[in-house]
Amino acid sequence: MAITLYELAGAEPDRRFSPYCWRTRLALAHKRLPVETLPWRFTEKERIAPTGQGRVPVIVEGDRWISDSWTIAGHLEDAYPDRASLFGGEGGRALARFVNNWVDAVLQPIAVRLVALDIWKHLDERDKAYFRKSREERFGMTLEQVQADRDQRVTELRQALTPARLTLERQRFLGGTVPLYPDYILMGMFMWTRGISDFPLLEPDDPIAAWRERMLDLYGGLGRRAKGYPV
Amino acid sequence: MAITLYELAGAEPDRRFSPYCWRTRLALAHKRLPVETLPWRFTEKERIAPTGQGRVPVIVEGDRWISDSWTIAGHLEDAYPDRASLFGGEGGRALARFVNNWVDAVLQPIAVRLVALDIWKHLDERDKAYFRKSREERFGMTLEQVQADRDQRVTELRQALTPARLTLERQRFLGGTVPLYPDYILMGMFMWTRGISDFPLLEPDDPIAAWRERMLDLYGGLGRRAKGYPV
Repeated sequence: MAITLYELAGAEPDRRFSPYCWRTRLALAHKRLPVETLPWRFTEKERIAPTGQGRVPVIVEGDRWISDSWTIAGHLEDAYPDRASLFGGEGGRALARFVNNWVDAVLQPIAVRLVALDIWKHLDERDKAYFRKSREERFGMTLEQVQADRDQRVTELRQALTPARLTLERQRFLGGTVPLYPDYILMGMFMWTRGISDFPLLEPDDPIAAWRERMLDLYGGLGRRAKGYPV
Repeated sequence: MAITLYELAGAEPDRRFSPYCWRTRLALAHKRLPVETLPWRFTEKERIAPTGQGRVPVIVEGDRWISDSWTIAGHLEDAYPDRASLFGGEGGRALARFVNNWVDAVLQPIAVRLVALDIWKHLDERDKAYFRKSREERFGMTLEQVQADRDQRVTELRQALTPARLTLERQRFLGGTVPLYPDYILMGMFMWTRGISDFPLLEPDDPIAAWRERMLDLYGGLGRRAKGYPV
């Protein structure tokens, strides 16, 4: 029985661009688990009400609803121990939490300010007003202003990516010779921006750009085939 | 046969304050390997000449000389597979490299500017001129100027520590329920500053401060008994 995954979608139902949903989508592919994805919009809280919260990703497995990408990853690892490990051992699992926090607290707050208006442009009409109001309150300025000087500010993201760059100069994936869940955490950010923006986050010769190509190729080109911009 | 470890020392031979040497010292303790430590100063390059480079930590095991803390950690893991693992599996090993790069490239460049003059004050006379000249060239200012506004700039370090803080709010060690090599990497930074400075890097209620106390207690209080300031 396929797992159902609720994924954030844009105006076009097949434009899936949540960094957190991509973490789950790639983790499901890693575990070779069949999945049926359903498009979901920010304002459709009632559709995921059984989880007791209002965000995606949400998976439904039989009659069990699970939310939160980190919780879902742990569940998949524990529920499918005979499939390829997402963490590569207990040490990897503990450190994956560190990478999760690094991407959430350091990288994505920088990245969102580079593409906030691009996100808005791709949203369903029902979501546009909600997104603009909530984000403009958070940023204390208009979405246009948030994104205005991104050509300069992108260097801040590239600088913040230094630990990943140094690591990927020495090994093919953050997980080592094979991709592990921390690769999906970081790739989620790139799938997010790629889904809604043609703004280049990386220099072409960045080792992270080469890693991103490898990640786009995984699982029959799951990432590359997704609707988005070719960056 | 005990392993010999060359450790950076200050004017007092028992003041050991290299963050990289502490990574190795704690890794040796983790593996329960007997060690004989030798004090070494920046200007004593000839004593470690067999390694073909001029930095510590250096370990000597029989007739084998090994330098570089990351290389040493990998060697200890491979040479003593029956002892407690430093990485907790291959995933943990790959991600430990990421933590190593994060501490090296993000945290320590901030931290050194908070304690650079304090380091100089504790150096052996032979090292003082070398250290002041090389660091003042690197920083483009005097050591006094580097450290001058540290009361304000310490917030930059606390901010940069966010991913570790969020992780240690959820688990006892970066390694999970037990300390792993990434804990020693981060602790190396605190053993370094503690060895030469009474400047408090952390707020008392920071979860990282509680973790640091746990780390000081490991291996019979190895860290706590080391010469340094009680911060």
